[in-house]
Amino acid sequence: MASTRLKKRSAKKIGSIPGSLIHIGTKREETVKINFFQYNKETYQEKILQNIEQVFNLRNSTDVTWVDIDGIHDTEIIGKLGKYFDLHPLLQEDILNTGHRPKVEVYDNCIFFTFKMLTQKDGELNILSEQISLVLGSNYVLSFQEESVDLFDPIRQRIRTKKGIVRERLCDYLFYLLIDITVDNYYKIVENMDDYMDKLEQTVLDNPNQNVMNSLQEVKKQLIVLKNAVYPIREAIIKLDREETELIKPATRNYLKDVHDHTVQLNETIDIYKDLSAGIRETYLSTLSYKMNQIMKVLTLISTIFIPLTFIVGVYGMNFDFMPELHSKYGYYFTWGFMILLSITMVVWFKTKKWL
Amino acid sequence: MASTRLKKRSAKKIGSIPGSLIHIGTKREETVKINFFQYNKETYQEKILQNIEQVFNLRNSTDVTWVDIDGIHDTEIIGKLGKYFDLHPLLQEDILNTGHRPKVEVYDNCIFFTFKMLTQKDGELNILSEQISLVLGSNYVLSFQEESVDLFDPIRQRIRTKKGIVRERLCDYLFYLLIDITVDNYYKIVENMDDYMDKLEQTVLDNPNQNVMNSLQEVKKQLIVLKNAVYPIREAIIKLDREETELIKPATRNYLKDVHDHTVQLNETIDIYKDLSAGIRETYLSTLSYKMNQIMKVLTLISTIFIPLTFIVGVYGMNFDFMPELHSKYGYYFTWGFMILLSITMVVWFKTKKWL
Amino acid sequence: MASTRLKKRSAKKIGSIPGSLIHIGTKREETVKINFFQYNKETYQEKILQNIEQVFNLRNSTDVTWVDIDGIHDTEIIGKLGKYFDLHPLLQEDILNTGHRPKVEVYDNCIFFTFKMLTQKDGELNILSEQISLVLGSNYVLSFQEESVDLFDPIRQRIRTKKGIVRERLCDYLFYLLIDITVDNYYKIVENMDDYMDKLEQTVLDNPNQNVMNSLQEVKKQLIVLKNAVYPIREAIIKLDREETELIKPATRNYLKDVHDHTVQLNETIDIYKDLSAGIRETYLSTLSYKMNQIMKVLTLISTIFIPLTFIVGVYGMNFDFMPELHSKYGYYFTWGFMILLSITMVVWFKTKKWL
Amino acid sequence: MASTRLKKRSAKKIGSIPGSLIHIGTKREETVKINFFQYNKETYQEKILQNIEQVFNLRNSTDVTWVDIDGIHDTEIIGKLGKYFDLHPLLQEDILNTGHRPKVEVYDNCIFFTFKMLTQKDGELNILSEQISLVLGSNYVLSFQEESVDLFDPIRQRIRTKKGIVRERLCDYLFYLLIDITVDNYYKIVENMDDYMDKLEQTVLDNPNQNVMNSLQEVKKQLIVLKNAVYPIREAIIKLDREETELIKPATRNYLKDVHDHTVQLNETIDIYKDLSAGIRETYLSTLSYKMNQIMKVLTLISTIFIPLTFIVGVYGMNFDFMPELHSKYGYYFTWGFMILLSITMVVWFKTKKWL
Amino acid sequence: MASTRLKKRSAKKIGSIPGSLIHIGTKREETVKINFFQYNKETYQEKILQNIEQVFNLRNSTDVTWVDIDGIHDTEIIGKLGKYFDLHPLLQEDILNTGHRPKVEVYDNCIFFTFKMLTQKDGELNILSEQISLVLGSNYVLSFQEESVDLFDPIRQRIRTKKGIVRERLCDYLFYLLIDITVDNYYKIVENMDDYMDKLEQTVLDNPNQNVMNSLQEVKKQLIVLKNAVYPIREAIIKLDREETELIKPATRNYLKDVHDHTVQLNETIDIYKDLSAGIRETYLSTLSYKMNQIMKVLTLISTIFIPLTFIVGVYGMNFDFMPELHSKYGYYFTWGFMILLSITMVVWFKTKKWL
Repeated sequence: MASTRLKKRSAKKIGSIPGSLIHIGTKREETVKINFFQYNKETYQEKILQNIEQVFNLRNSTDVTWVDIDGIHDTEIIGKLGKYFDLHPLLQEDILNTGHRPKVEVYDNCIFFTFKMLTQKDGELNILSEQISLVLGSNYVLSFQEESVDLFDPIRQRIRTKKGIVRERLCDYLFYLLIDITVDNYYKIVENMDDYMDKLEQTVLDNPNQNVMNSLQEVKKQLIVLKNAVYPIREAIIKLDREETELIKPATRNYLKDVHDHTVQLNETIDIYKDLSAGIRETYLSTLSYKMNQIMKVLTLISTIFIPLTFIVGVYGMNFDFMPELHSKYGYYFTWGFMILLSITMVVWFKTKKWL
Repeated sequence: MASTRLKKRSAKKIGSIPGSLIHIGTKREETVKINFFQYNKETYQEKILQNIEQVFNLRNSTDVTWVDIDGIHDTEIIGKLGKYFDLHPLLQEDILNTGHRPKVEVYDNCIFFTFKMLTQKDGELNILSEQISLVLGSNYVLSFQEESVDLFDPIRQRIRTKKGIVRERLCDYLFYLLIDITVDNYYKIVENMDDYMDKLEQTVLDNPNQNVMNSLQEVKKQLIVLKNAVYPIREAIIKLDREETELIKPATRNYLKDVHDHTVQLNETIDIYKDLSAGIRETYLSTLSYKMNQIMKVLTLISTIFIPLTFIVGVYGMNFDFMPELHSKYGYYFTWGFMILLSITMVVWFKTKKWL
Repeated sequence: MASTRLKKRSAKKIGSIPGSLIHIGTKREETVKINFFQYNKETYQEKILQNIEQVFNLRNSTDVTWVDIDGIHDTEIIGKLGKYFDLHPLLQEDILNTGHRPKVEVYDNCIFFTFKMLTQKDGELNILSEQISLVLGSNYVLSFQEESVDLFDPIRQRIRTKKGIVRERLCDYLFYLLIDITVDNYYKIVENMDDYMDKLEQTVLDNPNQNVMNSLQEVKKQLIVLKNAVYPIREAIIKLDREETELIKPATRNYLKDVHDHTVQLNETIDIYKDLSAGIRETYLSTLSYKMNQIMKVLTLISTIFIPLTFIVGVYGMNFDFMPELHSKYGYYFTWGFMILLSITMVVWFKTKKWL
Repeated sequence: MASTRLKKRSAKKIGSIPGSLIHIGTKREETVKINFFQYNKETYQEKILQNIEQVFNLRNSTDVTWVDIDGIHDTEIIGKLGKYFDLHPLLQEDILNTGHRPKVEVYDNCIFFTFKMLTQKDGELNILSEQISLVLGSNYVLSFQEESVDLFDPIRQRIRTKKGIVRERLCDYLFYLLIDITVDNYYKIVENMDDYMDKLEQTVLDNPNQNVMNSLQEVKKQLIVLKNAVYPIREAIIKLDREETELIKPATRNYLKDVHDHTVQLNETIDIYKDLSAGIRETYLSTLSYKMNQIMKVLTLISTIFIPLTFIVGVYGMNFDFMPELHSKYGYYFTWGFMILLSITMVVWFKTKKWL
Repeated sequence: MASTRLKKRSAKKIGSIPGSLIHIGTKREETVKINFFQYNKETYQEKILQNIEQVFNLRNSTDVTWVDIDGIHDTEIIGKLGKYFDLHPLLQEDILNTGHRPKVEVYDNCIFFTFKMLTQKDGELNILSEQISLVLGSNYVLSFQEESVDLFDPIRQRIRTKKGIVRERLCDYLFYLLIDITVDNYYKIVENMDDYMDKLEQTVLDNPNQNVMNSLQEVKKQLIVLKNAVYPIREAIIKLDREETELIKPATRNYLKDVHDHTVQLNETIDIYKDLSAGIRETYLSTLSYKMNQIMKVLTLISTIFIPLTFIVGVYGMNFDFMPELHSKYGYYFTWGFMILLSITMVVWFKTKKWL
């Protein structure tokens, strides 16, 4: 749930010194994976490094350098990178604090963009949220991911094979690509949501049961997770567009506008799903109560028909000495006749009133 | 449903290279129909072409050229047009991506406007949404439609017959006309919606049944489709009005304001329908529960009258040896009298309490 | 209903040429009534004309000229006026299109203001909406009304009798007066609405019945009609205030601000009524369900008391050969005693539980 | 009710000449009370006048003059004051029109501020609303009150006794003081509202009855009255702060900001009460339905236990010639045994299912 | 409850002189605790003073002075501090008025920031709210707390031990730290809220009972308290950021932005909780009604099966002389057979209809 992250934050942070590097998130033991990429139009270089210092040796200042850190639990690496690239202490803190709201911060020497990668396990509605942080400098991009679900592989492939224009552009285009692929990925979540809602709607029509309410509450929570991921990105890109920074070239701004349009569409879709799930809830509740009412009506009608009949047979079960009907030869048959007539009258009456 | 489009997008686009031409929409086999129009005050020329290259030969730079492409599944045509008219790669991508939100993009050499054409099959509520893209250049208009439901025929007729002022104006006026006729067309949808809602309201009063809830959920969905089509157009026209572009002349801006007014009115109407459909739902639920309550009340009243009577006849059905009433000559008649009195008392009491 | 107007629009307009003069509204056969007024501080002239050309002859350019057209189905008159006063084609179209949303348009040579006059038949809630269009030029005011419900008579009287300052001011003050009297008139509608809501609230308390829901839906619709008339006027006056036009003098702007204040108040009142009608609905539904529950509770209590008693008498109605109680001399009386005791116990128990 | 005021307005104003002095409100016969105050740092003068002309004689132009008019039904007094102080006709009209929305108007020579004084009778929820109008000139303050509930006495006392800094400041500080004391007074209403809501909440928990719904609708109405009084004041003070007028000194602006903060807090409080009253309604409805359900459940359980038993005793009440059980010696006792067993089984089953 | 504070205000303030020092809050008898801190990079001095005059003696103008007042019921101390540091009368009043909404005021010589410290007793939901006021001058910070729950101890510790950068920075950084630690503390409240809501949600699933509604109303109230504390801080920090004051250095502004981000996140979390609690309420109500319906259905089914059977046995309990079935040898067994068949038929029918 969305709030779990908040807990994590509060548990470790309250009273700590601002700007101090504390990793907030699930601790992991594995070594941090460091992907090093360096490219220009003609050549590219790719390395998986064990050691962050190697980055500083390998790097040259003319090509685009992309350092992708998979795993942020090793605060030392962040510290060293921060020192080398001269990153603001609050920026370093934000990379480590995975409970952060997506946001963009424009510093003098770099742009910091942190947002969420969302994944779902197959067949589950539950959205897993991981933090991705990007730092765009004058000729480098740093990317930080919490775990190794690697979203960025298609981009690496493009760099290797020179597909698209990534090799012809500078690091701001790479920065855009990393954002774009993450936002594109949200559509998968939306697609799953869509399937889930369709099924839910069908369930309500076919076989409404109490799980619907729980499912709808679950949908609500997942929509919150999604909204919390998408909404601030939109804000952030607007903010980025307004900032007069040299780090993002005009050509790339057009592409960022495209990402912005996607987040607007995603936001609208989320609102639509909220609306539709409210509609499903109403249909469910009304269907339930309608079915219940139908049952109760039929049952009550049955009782209502038999109760007067039972009274009549009760009458002739009385033991009075003087009850002339009892001795009449056809009394029994007359009584049956009367009772059948009464039943028919009642049924007809109910039909007239459209109760049956 | 609105979300179906989103699925299409995500299915084909995630991870693809930005600016690459991929058609997103139902594949079709037919040849693309190319309508070529060229006119000025005095003359006009009209051709249906098989081949996009013919456009480039036929075109002269002094007249207004209108190329209308019916069918966008042939990405090659878009590519060639894009190269000839020097259209931005993202613009070309947007033409092909039919899942896009309506929007306007102002480029240096042209204005790109994409929006939805909405149609309904006769007697159906379901709205079919198709994408229309317009490109306004210095002396040409390109229009792209998904299928061959041809909304633009009245405009062609006007060009041919010199009706109206279209032949006297430049291509920005044609651009306006194409938008205007699409927006005008939305009123048809609204009209059908109106009829549908009226019928629904009548149904609720006459014969409320469970389909009402499904119909209302359906109305909700169609209103979302409508809103998704109309709302962004309004935004787009405001944006267009603010842009300082030479491509749209001041005289035409007045006309675009008129289109803007229509979209405002449409938006308000959609909100009204949302509100009214909520009202219908409430009336339906209340009517249902009122009717149910009436039935249950009457049935329960019947039971309540007979249950004490049944008790009384039960009393005289007991087999005690010593029950003096049983041997009384008029016991049976007294009992009947008492029971009738009791029933009348109860009915009167219920009437006093306004329960009957 | 609000939407009926929309239908009218769509029925005649779709595909027609923008700026073409087509009257949209109920056709009428009567001749159009032309009221001609011309005045200055010293003198005034008043004529009812048969022929629009007479206006052009009578008019002089130093006095204030007010031409009031009652009936807009004669498009020729509008056309001639338009030509004489050099009115923009879209303006002329807007005068004829009675389905338009209230709005103001500032042209170079005139201001166009179109809005709604609302009337109610005595004792009816249903609001009838008619369009009024005003054109304010440098020294003339044109007013167009759909039908002959004449709201403007008090103003004519004032001109004739020199009451107020209308004769001392220029045509912008007359323009303001015409708007002011229409907005003032909305208060009558609000007053009726108020009475209607009061009655409805009383009905809910005294004798809640299913008509309440229909009445509330009706109130909702009329509030929409009212809001659609009032809200855009407010917008329009704000727009007018911001425009730097010479046609409205600073002195008159103060008066327009006053009209603006009234529309703000009307808007708030409409929102309040929406809120209050929601409150009435809730009270109604709750009252209904409370009453129903009370009835069912009492009825069920009666059943609950008699069912165990009926069981007991059933026991002694059994025909077993060996049932010692049956032969006891006081068995019958003991049974009665037990049953009375049981009933009392149950009633006391129900009272303790506050069920009775 | 809020709307009553609207009625008053419409009844008298429609069609009247703008700027004409018509008193809108309950007519009263008493003489208008005129409080005259004139003070500077050293001295002060206080008079209760019968005649408005005396004000003009007594007044000098160096001291602060405060004329407080209690009763605005004498339009002549307003007219004379208006002429003497050169007040705009619309301002004079606004003083008399008690149906006006609180607002501020900045004229060239004065500031006009009209707002509501709210009072409640002891132990009643109903809020009485009276209009207060202030006119701040270069060296005078005029205040107009509808009736004689005198809120301003503490300020008079302060002037007399030189308490606070009022005697050291100019008339803009007095103007502020009059606004401040009125806004402070709103807190009393809020306090009463708070008590009332607390009681209501307690009632819902202890003894929910149908009056709760009416009380909540009443609360809603009073919150509207309160909001209508408070909300526009906030707007007005913001407007005042933005105006570049010499009449209010920078030092006093700080104090007005303080009043603004109070109105913000009041607005939030009103919204909170709206929210809380919705919560109370939901709790009430749910409590009611919960209690009802509990009753019905128990009653139905009782019936359900006895109905099968009644069937069994019915079986042995049959008169077949050949019913072996009837002649068995222990048949009667076996039957009882079976019935007791059955009852116990059912009770246990209901307990298992947590129905009891 | 939130409103209690409002009461306090109104009870003591109405009619009092603006700027006069009146303590609004629970009176306390204990002596006010004065914490005095003075530090620079090299040294620091810490004293607990009995007497406010000592502050003025100890203070030097080059170091950062931090005076922390625990307890604001001694108005004299505030008065003396106010005189010494030349604080505006309204500022002094605001320190004492604990009912104030969080806000920032920028004066010429200082910045005043007042906000809420929130605490919860262990295991309770109820939030206790205390006011904290900060005054930031050119080289001093004053802090005022209502009671002795000391939130600021970690900061004192940092100053003593030179942990973090607080000793290297000026008083604006200290000012930030005091705000930051308070906002950080809100996360604890949020965490508790989260636990509480989780439990509530579980209760609804496992064992829904009427306390849920009260708990939800309680949650609503606490969320209001939280929102009232958090929302205005955000506003205040935005305001602070916009002010061009020398008192806050650019370096510190970055840190304040961080606090701002936290308040944005807190606000969103509060909105999410509001939404989720609405979801819990809906699930609760639906679960309750579903369970109830299930019970009633089963019970009614039992009745419906037995009522016709009871009728049948009633028939053969009649005492007619001529009832052939009674004398048939197998009549009794046939009757049983028929009744068993009837029951089975009904059960099967109910199963088919999915009523069982």
